[in-house]
Amino acid sequence: MTAPLKIAVAGLGVVGAETVRLIAAQHDVLARRGGRPLVVTAVSARDKNRDRGVSFDGIEWFDDPVAMARSADADVICELIGGSDGVARDVCEVAIAAGRHVVTANKALIAMHGASLGRDAEAAKRTLAYEAAVAGGIPIIKALREGLAANQVTRLQGILNGTCNYILTVMRESGRDFAEILAEAQAHGYAEADPSFDIDGVDAAHKLAILTSVAFGCEIDFDAVHIEGIRHIDAQDIRFATELGYRIKLLGIAEMTEAGVQQRVHPAMVPLEAPIASVEGVFNGVVAEGDFVGTTMFEGRGAGAGPTASAVVADIVDIARGRETPTYGVPADALQAMRVMPMDERVGLYFVRVMVYDKPGVFADIAGALRDSEISIESAIQRSRSEGGVVPVVLTTHETKEASMRHALNLIGALDSVAEAPRMIRIETP
Amino acid sequence: MTAPLKIAVAGLGVVGAETVRLIAAQHDVLARRGGRPLVVTAVSARDKNRDRGVSFDGIEWFDDPVAMARSADADVICELIGGSDGVARDVCEVAIAAGRHVVTANKALIAMHGASLGRDAEAAKRTLAYEAAVAGGIPIIKALREGLAANQVTRLQGILNGTCNYILTVMRESGRDFAEILAEAQAHGYAEADPSFDIDGVDAAHKLAILTSVAFGCEIDFDAVHIEGIRHIDAQDIRFATELGYRIKLLGIAEMTEAGVQQRVHPAMVPLEAPIASVEGVFNGVVAEGDFVGTTMFEGRGAGAGPTASAVVADIVDIARGRETPTYGVPADALQAMRVMPMDERVGLYFVRVMVYDKPGVFADIAGALRDSEISIESAIQRSRSEGGVVPVVLTTHETKEASMRHALNLIGALDSVAEAPRMIRIETP
Repeated sequence: MTAPLKIAVAGLGVVGAETVRLIAAQHDVLARRGGRPLVVTAVSARDKNRDRGVSFDGIEWFDDPVAMARSADADVICELIGGSDGVARDVCEVAIAAGRHVVTANKALIAMHGASLGRDAEAAKRTLAYEAAVAGGIPIIKALREGLAANQVTRLQGILNGTCNYILTVMRESGRDFAEILAEAQAHGYAEADPSFDIDGVDAAHKLAILTSVAFGCEIDFDAVHIEGIRHIDAQDIRFATELGYRIKLLGIAEMTEAGVQQRVHPAMVPLEAPIASVEGVFNGVVAEGDFVGTTMFEGRGAGAGPTASAVVADIVDIARGRETPTYGVPADALQAMRVMPMDERVGLYFVRVMVYDKPGVFADIAGALRDSEISIESAIQRSRSEGGVVPVVLTTHETKEASMRHALNLIGALDSVAEAPRMIRIETP
Repeated sequence: MTAPLKIAVAGLGVVGAETVRLIAAQHDVLARRGGRPLVVTAVSARDKNRDRGVSFDGIEWFDDPVAMARSADADVICELIGGSDGVARDVCEVAIAAGRHVVTANKALIAMHGASLGRDAEAAKRTLAYEAAVAGGIPIIKALREGLAANQVTRLQGILNGTCNYILTVMRESGRDFAEILAEAQAHGYAEADPSFDIDGVDAAHKLAILTSVAFGCEIDFDAVHIEGIRHIDAQDIRFATELGYRIKLLGIAEMTEAGVQQRVHPAMVPLEAPIASVEGVFNGVVAEGDFVGTTMFEGRGAGAGPTASAVVADIVDIARGRETPTYGVPADALQAMRVMPMDERVGLYFVRVMVYDKPGVFADIAGALRDSEISIESAIQRSRSEGGVVPVVLTTHETKEASMRHALNLIGALDSVAEAPRMIRIETP
């Protein structure tokens, strides 16, 4: 057995502490799988005295993670601090410059600076690994870069944020409203005190931008991701979805089309029988379409200490074994510029809910707006009646362009008989 | 770019021909991902003149695959002939002895001789790769050996045979009988002319035996797999399963318990909300439980030319890149002997259907047999009545041991009021 692989862990939040615990707990199996023992030689965090439920005996302590990245007795630096810039970025850059491998769980960092970090690592002949940055414990980066290496992936569809999926699942099961479930999720620790990164789709968009790059071999382009969150999803939308045979999921979708690459994060209705519809609660799932393999799906826990540490240590085992893979399936240096397909070019089905004053002719007005936008109606529901009150009209469309749908939504929103801005949810068929 | 990786393909059935086609069609992307071009330099099959829809220009032809394995100008031999012994085995042994890497899609061969072939390959410092042998295009071997390397996997559950899953799916959707659907599947080419390997569970057991070894690090022990197929699944069992909130699937299950390793292939009822319940038609799915990652699921096409070729070429890309992984996660030489947990020790829930003569006291007789076997009843259905005729009594049990269930089934089968041997289907909760 060769010399141990020495690991320094920057950041001892739940994931950092669990990573240290995992490496100790699985010592024997990791030594067999890695071909050499893995040992944590250094750690760094803000508060040395906090009880993290794990022993740091014999491990060097650094107050400054950047100093640790520069001078610790370590082959690998695990960056588990978080944030797209600041200390986390410094740690990674300094570690690579000091000739160390970097393993990170930091999706924001990779989404914003992954290409340049990858180029730095390649120039230094070191590994930049980030399996834990996307979909927690699911080995999706490995699957795309290696397991599906014989394929050109043409489409990805993922449930990439467990908080959103949990809220949408509980909304459906309980029939209750978004705000109520969010407050509960916060009380239980399933959602952050400031939940906006999760529920506004930013976290899912970070992950999608990384997946897009790995799947299609193009530069990471986070700014090109169309992002909508789940704040506006109403309990009645969930009920209508069920009635129509759909589930509402916050999806990240990347498509390689003749018009370019499309990346979008938004709530979507997916048919009940689609594999991704059965990914529920805090679970994540990624569907990848390859030209030879067809449809594949990968499902598992997308967050939490154990699953994230599992992914971090899988990357470390690859390094221990000397298994090298170009950073994004191809070297960061060979990534191609992304030709972006504008969101307006999306072609698909749409669900529209319009709150209208319940009087004669309303439906004709809405149908007229759709006709004038060259959209044909697939189904319509106008069930509840309350004389003079406000009632929902629900429509699904045949295939149409996003631009036409936007046009129609503007026309409908301007109608006198319409009480509030119409709500649109895209329908995604597999 | 370094020298090309030279590949010889033994066997040009649908998978072999598709592998040759894939390597040519994806030439550029494979060269980028593999770090060097992949080229097929030799092929071998029985009939040189058959049109396989793919060009063999510039490729050396061998009538004898063993001669090719010995003397072709190739770094890698792909064994795509099939069968646990005979030519397929000879090709692999000769290839390794001649210093070549071996990539195979042959589950029977690996299930029967995988440990010795692995030891030979390791001694020769060559790779024996077999991703395509299990679950077609799903990169499950890579996921278990590398993606989940930080975990001790405690349990695997898989839908490993697409033919069975297709038949069971169509039986449920159509309400029709096994024999009818099997005949249709044969007519459409979804089932073999001799379907016994598939429908009697042998094919799934080959794959399970391989997965068990990779997951638990123990010697492959195909003979220790308890095997039942799907021939006896009746249309009314499918209806009762739906009524009780279950789907019937042919599952391969491997568990690491204190009493040893249990491997079993049999029809099982799984709750509708379990992720594996939504794996339908010809798709395969594998659920792996790891101690840190929790539950993960991998789904995709388990057979067919494209998915299988995808897995074969993924293994070749690993070889091209020089990525090495011990044959079964640990070296074949380090596999531990398997301590087998007898099937009688299985503890779980059971579904039992008894066809009885419809007369007073029958239910009391059956309940008595269960009581005498120390089994308690969870639910009972005795709905249809036909004076003097034969009607089904359906029971589900609380947790009990397989041995107790066998005892009860013997008692029930011997009752005068019982018209035929009772049918038992295990219930598997996630």
